[in-house]
Amino acid sequence: MAITIIARHMDPQTILQALGQIAPQLDVRIWPDDGDTDEISYALCWKPPQGIFQQYANLKAIGSLGAGIDFLLKDPQLPAHLPVTRIVSQQLAQSMFDYVASCALNYCRQFDLYRKLQQDNLWRPLPPLLCSEVTIGIMGLGELGRFVASKLLQLGFKVVGWSRSSKDISGVECYAADAQLSPFLAKTQMLFCLLPLTDATEGILNRELFIQLPQGAYVVNVARGEHLIEQDLLWALKSGHLRGATLDVFRQEPLPDEHPFWQCDQITITPHCASATYPQAAAPQIVENYLRLCQNQPLLYQVNLKNGY
Amino acid sequence: MAITIIARHMDPQTILQALGQIAPQLDVRIWPDDGDTDEISYALCWKPPQGIFQQYANLKAIGSLGAGIDFLLKDPQLPAHLPVTRIVSQQLAQSMFDYVASCALNYCRQFDLYRKLQQDNLWRPLPPLLCSEVTIGIMGLGELGRFVASKLLQLGFKVVGWSRSSKDISGVECYAADAQLSPFLAKTQMLFCLLPLTDATEGILNRELFIQLPQGAYVVNVARGEHLIEQDLLWALKSGHLRGATLDVFRQEPLPDEHPFWQCDQITITPHCASATYPQAAAPQIVENYLRLCQNQPLLYQVNLKNGY
Repeated sequence: MAITIIARHMDPQTILQALGQIAPQLDVRIWPDDGDTDEISYALCWKPPQGIFQQYANLKAIGSLGAGIDFLLKDPQLPAHLPVTRIVSQQLAQSMFDYVASCALNYCRQFDLYRKLQQDNLWRPLPPLLCSEVTIGIMGLGELGRFVASKLLQLGFKVVGWSRSSKDISGVECYAADAQLSPFLAKTQMLFCLLPLTDATEGILNRELFIQLPQGAYVVNVARGEHLIEQDLLWALKSGHLRGATLDVFRQEPLPDEHPFWQCDQITITPHCASATYPQAAAPQIVENYLRLCQNQPLLYQVNLKNGY
Repeated sequence: MAITIIARHMDPQTILQALGQIAPQLDVRIWPDDGDTDEISYALCWKPPQGIFQQYANLKAIGSLGAGIDFLLKDPQLPAHLPVTRIVSQQLAQSMFDYVASCALNYCRQFDLYRKLQQDNLWRPLPPLLCSEVTIGIMGLGELGRFVASKLLQLGFKVVGWSRSSKDISGVECYAADAQLSPFLAKTQMLFCLLPLTDATEGILNRELFIQLPQGAYVVNVARGEHLIEQDLLWALKSGHLRGATLDVFRQEPLPDEHPFWQCDQITITPHCASATYPQAAAPQIVENYLRLCQNQPLLYQVNLKNGY
């Protein structure tokens, strides 16, 4: 039995090294040079080519190397009988929180506006804004969303949340399902999208949603590029209804050179780095799941393929 | 007995209103239209003209409307026999922390570098950096410095501190006096200056200090413009030794239109807003001190004029 790493747009060496450090006896290979594919029982993936799993006759499980698994669901030949796992780690959540908190404080302390004033040598103190006066809305209250919401609360922000099914998070006013989306949006001065990508959430960040946010709201997408209707965001920014946006994910990654987002001064772009998988954090749960696989035990962090998360 | 507000570069009306809301019976006036100056016993000031206090024959105390009192010490005619008070408030400290945390997370998540890459349409994920891998150095461990240091620790940063006399803050490695400045600087990836302005600290942010910081360090000044030797900062940025700086205070405020800081893309400028006095937070302690003054009791938040803080 062996593990293969099928990774594109991600360096497989760092995961290989982290696995080697804690479990040197494991047979870990890197696709496409992974030898006799019949020996592979666990395929760790990041954006693998479609149909690739057909090559592995004795595969017992598929693992995403990130928190999301949407790239696996897109593969019509994904073997439906195999368990699919993902990475769940405190470090992934901490990394996401640091990114989100940076955006939230930047907005609250108005660094984005001061940066614009600086371009014109303008000294203009704006009315001070305290965290306790800013309401942040989190869409998606899974592992990451819940963690981020609770930590933002500790920073002093007011936090509201929205998710498909109703959730209970201490101190966070939670809204659920389509019916409660409007009241959630009406309260949200800064919207963070941490939703899983499903048929129901694709394109949810659209014109109709933006106009329900208060004037001057800020939008941050750290989930998936497909959540956003790109033209609708440009319209909402240009019209002045939204003050700005920070985007970490895009429909096409890397974001194409000619894309209008690059030179829109109301948009801050980061290259899908909000919540990076730290190999040292991922390796132990990969090893644990591999051992469970060998012993036919239930796996950790298994994904419900019907829900898509 | 009456209070006068002597404020320049600050709107006195907001303080007047806040005092009126909680103590409508107080006789509060606004300089220069403050009537019979013999009736004034408490002068609340922000950058008053030098020598102004000679006009108030029955003054019993002078109060700064901010956390600092350096502008009062500059007045050679400051009546040496009068107590001087300043504003100490949780909201002032919270506001400072929000600003500092925004800078720290911006550095950690490398938004400054991504913003530069965006200018050239460049998609280039940088090696991820966790808060726990970043050491922040706080110069000045007074009310604000101690609060900020402890809260940064809660965010997950490593924190070291330096001050004139030795301090003890749980979880923060504290250094003291000139002798320990070098080892403090050697550890500091992100330097925050929260020092009081005194003869000993004027010009402390200079070339000799910058070169003792590790390559790629970041400097933030939220104390007073006079702490910084401006040419030395420009040199350290241009040489590439420092990655960037955020400045909230300047030797001349407003920062003159022709100043080279404005168009230096490694410098972020804010207009002395890091820790703004919130009138609602300041008013209760002003009223309390006024009542103590009337009853000849010791005042709150009195400054030691010999130390300068």
